[in-house]
Amino acid sequence: MHKFTDFVQQLEQRFSDTGLFPEQPIGLYEPCRYLLGIGGKRVRPALCLMGNEMFGPAGDDAMHAATAIELFHNFTLVHDDIMDKAPLRRGKETIHAKYGLTAGILSGDILCIYAYEHLAKVKNHLPEIFKLFNKTAIEVCEGQQLDMDFEIRNDVTIDEYIHMIALKTSVLLACSLKIGAILGGASEDNADKIYEFGKNLGIAFQLQDDYLDAFGETDKLGKQNGGDIKANKKTYLLLKAIEAANNEQKAQLDKLLKTDNDNKIGDMLALYTATGADKHCRQAVQSYSDMAFSNLEEIEVSDAHKQPLFELASYLLQRDK
Amino acid sequence: MHKFTDFVQQLEQRFSDTGLFPEQPIGLYEPCRYLLGIGGKRVRPALCLMGNEMFGPAGDDAMHAATAIELFHNFTLVHDDIMDKAPLRRGKETIHAKYGLTAGILSGDILCIYAYEHLAKVKNHLPEIFKLFNKTAIEVCEGQQLDMDFEIRNDVTIDEYIHMIALKTSVLLACSLKIGAILGGASEDNADKIYEFGKNLGIAFQLQDDYLDAFGETDKLGKQNGGDIKANKKTYLLLKAIEAANNEQKAQLDKLLKTDNDNKIGDMLALYTATGADKHCRQAVQSYSDMAFSNLEEIEVSDAHKQPLFELASYLLQRDK
Repeated sequence: MHKFTDFVQQLEQRFSDTGLFPEQPIGLYEPCRYLLGIGGKRVRPALCLMGNEMFGPAGDDAMHAATAIELFHNFTLVHDDIMDKAPLRRGKETIHAKYGLTAGILSGDILCIYAYEHLAKVKNHLPEIFKLFNKTAIEVCEGQQLDMDFEIRNDVTIDEYIHMIALKTSVLLACSLKIGAILGGASEDNADKIYEFGKNLGIAFQLQDDYLDAFGETDKLGKQNGGDIKANKKTYLLLKAIEAANNEQKAQLDKLLKTDNDNKIGDMLALYTATGADKHCRQAVQSYSDMAFSNLEEIEVSDAHKQPLFELASYLLQRDK
Repeated sequence: MHKFTDFVQQLEQRFSDTGLFPEQPIGLYEPCRYLLGIGGKRVRPALCLMGNEMFGPAGDDAMHAATAIELFHNFTLVHDDIMDKAPLRRGKETIHAKYGLTAGILSGDILCIYAYEHLAKVKNHLPEIFKLFNKTAIEVCEGQQLDMDFEIRNDVTIDEYIHMIALKTSVLLACSLKIGAILGGASEDNADKIYEFGKNLGIAFQLQDDYLDAFGETDKLGKQNGGDIKANKKTYLLLKAIEAANNEQKAQLDKLLKTDNDNKIGDMLALYTATGADKHCRQAVQSYSDMAFSNLEEIEVSDAHKQPLFELASYLLQRDK
């Protein structure tokens, strides 16, 4: 059995290959090569290959699907970055910042179509995989729409938030694993379980990310804490604090959301603690994490075959320890 | 055999059906319903159904594919309109003008993915059709990139121009016909011939469009002539005039391209005639038109089965008569 890092290494080679796209028209493909070349963690395609190896020997089909998934993911990044007006991605200029809006739109489009171009190379289980891929692609776009809707809404519930992050982030992880599993010959039941594992893992990871952005150790994360607080981002912590606040705390929250001074982060963290939002967030991480591990447990293959995914999930969900 | 207009009527019903997309999130799907609802000629899906009926009885597969093609076409319109900063489409506000840039990008994306969602419902010949659809989708994006590249290039040749319009416009018409034909059970040879028919028809139609924009009768077209000339658009006529001009005419051309006065259109038309660009353009229309009709001739089915496409092509290519 290969580890996550083995697959990542293999994939890194594949995606830095400049032959992944044609040479011309250069204005269309140069931005694609640039984006694929500046890295990324390759988590999704690696999950596809890991899901595959859990059930059967690696084949070309899994690599085609993994490629499709990574290209699709990069397509969403390019267009999301335009919508979010983000200047940087992976520490480098975003495509629209570097090449302009038109290049951002069209290179994003061609990445999406190339995702399908690689998916079409899959020889086994194509109809099933094609449908799952489409369902997921639709959900990811819906998640992005909800995320933007939430920015201007003031009545977002915790359930809606979880639903949004599941669509925007988790279903593609789940889909990656399940497609790999189907191509490896997994039973329907096992394929469904690995999907649920991926979905719960993704939600747990995103909620942990919310928590660490506020309470994590700055050194370990390599980025400044409190970015979400500064941006008034509607994270699990903020939504829970709003929900649990008494009248006095509500007034403090309203005031804090309108300020931008040096004490904002510290004051907000104090409110997260006072309202118990921090504790709730840790509990939610734990709860989705437990579900993920229990899904993994239930898959009917040997423990040895589960080991790489078990290790990866353990690593991802305990990164602050 | 059904005529083009029969199919268009059937398709009009399908695409004005609000149930084509989910209700929520409304910010994502409302723009899609709006665009599909304001019409369009439905040429591409109709060609798919006509290609289908030429070889076999209509089935669900052809309608799924026709739907995929129309949604894909609308996806390209939404994103092209953003890139072209176009305020109007089909006489109504474009999506980005009406709903904003973000909605334009994301609704375009979801239209592309829904195209594949419908394509995945095709039960027969799926791998072959999936690959042809992808190849065409890539070509359409490449055509759009070339079109934009040409705007800032001053050395575009006639051959490059024909290649660009073939990619941007004709291959999707050709693909529509061929997918219909494959689903109707056409032989490989017949499927290739109907593809070539569609490609040549598309090029002839586009070149005729270039010609009519300059020399057509304003009344019949319902739009003002000379729009391309005003915009300095690199049409067949302009490129040919540049190629054929003597030194004096070249100087006049250069001057005209830099002016924007009332005489510009008239002066440019005079130059098109003096350089013989008008005659060359009519000849090119005739030549691609001849090829199209000859491709249609060669398809091995009864004349009765060719009649609807023969009538449509005759109508499209003689609309100024």
